[in-house]
Amino acid sequence: MAKDTSAYDVLFTPIKIGSKTLKNRFYQVPHCIGAGTNYPGFQMAHRGVKAEGGWGAINTEQCSIHPECDDTLRITARIWDEGDVRNLRPMVDYIHKNDALAGCELFYAGVHAPGLETRTIARGPSQYNADFATVPGCPGFTYNHEADEDEIKRLQQHYADAASRARDAGFDIVDLYGAHAYGPMQWLNPYYNKRTDKYGGSFENRARFWIETLEKIREAVGDDLAVVTRCSVDTLYGGAGVEIGEDGLKFIEMASPYVDLWNVNIGDIAEWGEDAGPSRFYQSGHQNDWVRFVKQATDKPVVSVGRYVDAEKMLEVINTGVVDIIGAARPSIADPFLPNKIKEGRIEDIRTCIGCNVCISRWEMGGVPFICTQNATAGEEYRRGWHPEKFEPAKSDKDVLVVGAGPAGSECARVLLERGYTVHIVDDREKVGGYVNDVATLPGLGEWGYHRDYREIQLDKLLKKNKGSQLALGQKRMTADDILNYGATRVILATGATWSTVGFNHMTQEPIPGADASLPHVLTPEQVFEGKKKVGKRVMIINYDPYYWAPSIAEKFARAGHEVTIASVCGVGAYMDFTLEGPNVQRMLRDLGIKVLGETGCSRVEEGRVELFDIYGEGHKREYKGTGQLPRRENNTNQWHECDTVILITARRSNDGLFREIKARKDEWEKNGIEDVFVIGDAEAPRIIADATFDGHRLAREIEDESPQHQKPFKREQKIWGVPYNPGENPDLEWRL
Amino acid sequence: MAKDTSAYDVLFTPIKIGSKTLKNRFYQVPHCIGAGTNYPGFQMAHRGVKAEGGWGAINTEQCSIHPECDDTLRITARIWDEGDVRNLRPMVDYIHKNDALAGCELFYAGVHAPGLETRTIARGPSQYNADFATVPGCPGFTYNHEADEDEIKRLQQHYADAASRARDAGFDIVDLYGAHAYGPMQWLNPYYNKRTDKYGGSFENRARFWIETLEKIREAVGDDLAVVTRCSVDTLYGGAGVEIGEDGLKFIEMASPYVDLWNVNIGDIAEWGEDAGPSRFYQSGHQNDWVRFVKQATDKPVVSVGRYVDAEKMLEVINTGVVDIIGAARPSIADPFLPNKIKEGRIEDIRTCIGCNVCISRWEMGGVPFICTQNATAGEEYRRGWHPEKFEPAKSDKDVLVVGAGPAGSECARVLLERGYTVHIVDDREKVGGYVNDVATLPGLGEWGYHRDYREIQLDKLLKKNKGSQLALGQKRMTADDILNYGATRVILATGATWSTVGFNHMTQEPIPGADASLPHVLTPEQVFEGKKKVGKRVMIINYDPYYWAPSIAEKFARAGHEVTIASVCGVGAYMDFTLEGPNVQRMLRDLGIKVLGETGCSRVEEGRVELFDIYGEGHKREYKGTGQLPRRENNTNQWHECDTVILITARRSNDGLFREIKARKDEWEKNGIEDVFVIGDAEAPRIIADATFDGHRLAREIEDESPQHQKPFKREQKIWGVPYNPGENPDLEWRL
Repeated sequence: MAKDTSAYDVLFTPIKIGSKTLKNRFYQVPHCIGAGTNYPGFQMAHRGVKAEGGWGAINTEQCSIHPECDDTLRITARIWDEGDVRNLRPMVDYIHKNDALAGCELFYAGVHAPGLETRTIARGPSQYNADFATVPGCPGFTYNHEADEDEIKRLQQHYADAASRARDAGFDIVDLYGAHAYGPMQWLNPYYNKRTDKYGGSFENRARFWIETLEKIREAVGDDLAVVTRCSVDTLYGGAGVEIGEDGLKFIEMASPYVDLWNVNIGDIAEWGEDAGPSRFYQSGHQNDWVRFVKQATDKPVVSVGRYVDAEKMLEVINTGVVDIIGAARPSIADPFLPNKIKEGRIEDIRTCIGCNVCISRWEMGGVPFICTQNATAGEEYRRGWHPEKFEPAKSDKDVLVVGAGPAGSECARVLLERGYTVHIVDDREKVGGYVNDVATLPGLGEWGYHRDYREIQLDKLLKKNKGSQLALGQKRMTADDILNYGATRVILATGATWSTVGFNHMTQEPIPGADASLPHVLTPEQVFEGKKKVGKRVMIINYDPYYWAPSIAEKFARAGHEVTIASVCGVGAYMDFTLEGPNVQRMLRDLGIKVLGETGCSRVEEGRVELFDIYGEGHKREYKGTGQLPRRENNTNQWHECDTVILITARRSNDGLFREIKARKDEWEKNGIEDVFVIGDAEAPRIIADATFDGHRLAREIEDESPQHQKPFKREQKIWGVPYNPGENPDLEWRL
Repeated sequence: MAKDTSAYDVLFTPIKIGSKTLKNRFYQVPHCIGAGTNYPGFQMAHRGVKAEGGWGAINTEQCSIHPECDDTLRITARIWDEGDVRNLRPMVDYIHKNDALAGCELFYAGVHAPGLETRTIARGPSQYNADFATVPGCPGFTYNHEADEDEIKRLQQHYADAASRARDAGFDIVDLYGAHAYGPMQWLNPYYNKRTDKYGGSFENRARFWIETLEKIREAVGDDLAVVTRCSVDTLYGGAGVEIGEDGLKFIEMASPYVDLWNVNIGDIAEWGEDAGPSRFYQSGHQNDWVRFVKQATDKPVVSVGRYVDAEKMLEVINTGVVDIIGAARPSIADPFLPNKIKEGRIEDIRTCIGCNVCISRWEMGGVPFICTQNATAGEEYRRGWHPEKFEPAKSDKDVLVVGAGPAGSECARVLLERGYTVHIVDDREKVGGYVNDVATLPGLGEWGYHRDYREIQLDKLLKKNKGSQLALGQKRMTADDILNYGATRVILATGATWSTVGFNHMTQEPIPGADASLPHVLTPEQVFEGKKKVGKRVMIINYDPYYWAPSIAEKFARAGHEVTIASVCGVGAYMDFTLEGPNVQRMLRDLGIKVLGETGCSRVEEGRVELFDIYGEGHKREYKGTGQLPRRENNTNQWHECDTVILITARRSNDGLFREIKARKDEWEKNGIEDVFVIGDAEAPRIIADATFDGHRLAREIEDESPQHQKPFKREQKIWGVPYNPGENPDLEWRL
């Protein structure tokens, strides 16, 4: 019986964008994935499955128009030459085959790309250095050159030429990228533009570069393509920048005749987490207070973003006139089939973006493919041939016991069930999800629970379909004997990891003396979640971990009225600079009065106090002093700090005892009918949720392969010597003498 | 008249390495360049010119043996499959053509590679997380899996298979990489190895993995290849690790029968600047106090490193029995022709490595090609066809005026003179080198003066050869009129950059109120070098720059007895984490009692005090409050700090006034016989010395091109869609359903 989905009809109503028709209201705005034009298969397949999944338009990521815009170490698309056109065409073709529009975002970063590959210098309205950390940790590193009028013309011509190449590649849309403090935004924004000629000063003068560039692009592509521009309507630093109530709306009004669609958001690049808001700080629709004004100033359609994952909210923002079209980046990664699932009334099948920004973290650090916490197939579509919604049917009737229903175990079981295997999943928790159940109780991380919810719902559905299978929760922990006697042909250990109870850490590769979570005043994060131990007024977090644990647990206790100090060997939440949570985490720590002792290690824990030291306290002079002697002076910075409770966030340890015991008892497998035993996820090695999920998924896909414990080789997209890399060009060495 | 170079004969005496003969004592040890197998032309040409330049053996960088060792975001070589073999072969062939040996470093990082591309988990002797920041700023991020005996065998087989593939590629040498806390070192080192089976515990047990692996490699390649192993003989943390006086020498003795050459150094990976020592902290030969013991324990030849740039020092370490062979990484980058220049007695032509480690910084941050401060052609050999020692003869007789003899101007003039152009170089300084003359006076940066020295000597030689050319130093600054009337056909402005005198900075893109270097208590770095202003007892450095300026100037004044505070918006010397200067800079700051106020901006400067603020002091809650309103609360953290002298390290500004004036007076060019005017280096946009030097070099190479101000396209080594990337493999999308 087909569900009635007519309530969502407005989301599936076509709308004109210039000469093109968007078949529905689902628009994948440009977003980076780490494919660029370096990995054309990756680019094609990742974007292409979204077209299959019902998205009306799918854009590239930022696509550099010219070598002068070189964002390396970050990998982005390029449309510099015919080779790039060839590499973008498969994406376009795949999108067209699925009846969607393909867009190309014309990207010129100015000072916000460091030029580390091409060694070029970007042009801008004035001379300044980057407020964005073009090199990790190094804002201010990159400088630009103030363009004169010759160079303005040259730059505008680069845009027009790139638009022409985009047409050659078959794109339907070009998007002049002016959000995130890129390209023309640097001209509009008085924060950057200090010129006194006709391109600076008054609003009209500052808008001139952008308007002229739109005209040149239109001249180049005519009405063959829809011309879009992406614009930050408020840079969020008041009158020093662009405000929605001032230049933001004025510009929308002025430039409206030149565009077929407005692609709007807020913020800049130095803190672009204000746009791509992590769920820790920003909920769905968090940009609406600014974006809602846009339609007052234009009769062109408007698309905007805000982590829309919920069909009701999408309807609301369209029906209340905030936007005409739902823009999405992260939700389209977590579920490429989001539109089709809404259309088919399969709301419960949507893999909802959890807003963790791990996808962004990989692009942000540069040089690596992106990943997704929810969607293990993201980025794996081409190289491993993984389709997000399709699975190879079981190749055998060998049944599987999965021990542990955390991220790896639940995903592995889900995919095995999708394939039609008989699967038994056993866990001692009352719920699917493993430690995600705990993490989701941390302040701001509630949406991370969507990771569990998706698997919980899918397992429930699949178990109903597959009568021989079973999910056994709240069980006594299985022993090796239990497993050997269970009767399954294949056993998968997904038993997770726990934090060291003795302060084992990467600085000494040893425990911290006196650190012992069997004592009443010392806790691991697991014991924090258990809530059995009393936590004193003064909490000292000993931190050796670079991700969210220390700031989240600090926040939890600070909000509960404790005095919290974090002693940390690394930057507190250093990885969160990559997830764009960094700046607001820093602000939050201050807001809550959490004290941070940086570059600080712990040498001893006692009741009521910890001994801390400056990790750089042993002097910069090094000399050979003989065997048994350190080459520097002794670190003499140790100091005692009083506290009531110590929380150890030092290193995780795999719960692999069960796996090792069963492997050691290999001679008992045959008589028990066991053919294979695998260990996956954190039980193999601790890792982030995304990678544990991936590992479970991978084993389920590859379980019939020759050596499933170890991953199957994937397609490598790499130049091979002797093959001309650009059409007609000679790849051999020719000295320019 | 040929020079008598017989004093250097020992450096050119052949020596046997197993079945191979090294023709001299110059051995390019493995070092990363950012080419990997991704850019086979880059790899071929950069290594190949060293063979041309006389190096007896040239190695790859670390070459991953298997996808389980994936160092992405850092780019390294790989020898995983036939495609990689094909991509390494051109390098080998080029080296062989020049009568040198080619080596392949067999690399398995264990936990010290993050697996961000392949999503694999590395194996190690025990489970631990990385003490190295596998992801920038994030030590502790990556965990491994403790190998059982099956997996030990598997891993050793990966090594053997990779060695076989290296033989297929034509290599003469395989080097089992055990230095820098990689591969077998994790098994030998009790810091990592906590096993209790036959692979852990006693020295013999910990050495077992390494010895067995050497045996398997020998089994695979026999005597066809020389088998080398790279070993850190002291990990520099005393008895917790490997010490030269204990396990270091014991291992050399034990493993000696299995190797044909020892490639030794000191240190680990978390602080590998203790090996690749920056000149700021370590002089040539700085490892000798440890390495000098090695030959006591082996009769096999020994190669080691230590930034050997001086032929006399090379002779000394060989003659005194420290090593048999001079290993080099950085000196071979700065001058690929170092051996030939010594052989030919052309000592004055050597481009001496300055030890700045900018080459390393690019690999360390990941994803980008490396560069060299001294050698502008490093990394440009293939893609731009630049040979380090060969130049295209002048294509016209148009003479050139170069205004400014700093890094860009002097390098541009040098290359133009090499090409045979008539060049006039004018500068107001008394010496070639521009601001490098000042930088080289900063504590520890004396060797940076080699950059100036090389150009000074070369210009002197070339000017003697080319009578029409001239170098005019100590001149009055040229005006636009002077230049227009000079009589040159082409004018190149290389007038450098200076630090903002008003505190212009990337956080506000405005000056800092009250910051004014015309006042007696406020100084720019240039005024520090001038030494005209009195500097008070309490020095406050206002820092917005991520590189060496703040720590160096702080060190200068602290050593002179001042009380120094650095208020810094970014990590002090953040970029120096990439140049490996970071940890010792941090220690130095402590040693000298320099106070650092982190995450701190400056809002006002007054006589006797500065107003500072916490850059994260405005609260983490954001809401729309209307036009003219900031979306967060006001930053209320401003506090006054007393000081006597303020030094502004905020942002550099190009000295481009002259260029802009001459360009504006284009109508006067023709009558003055001027055809073209260019701006290069810091005068176009401030940048590091390496990139300014590159820019001068580039313009000189490309000056006859169509638009020399803008760089000519280079060869891009990139996969192009539709071309099979691995022999026989289908590049099309095939879903694994």
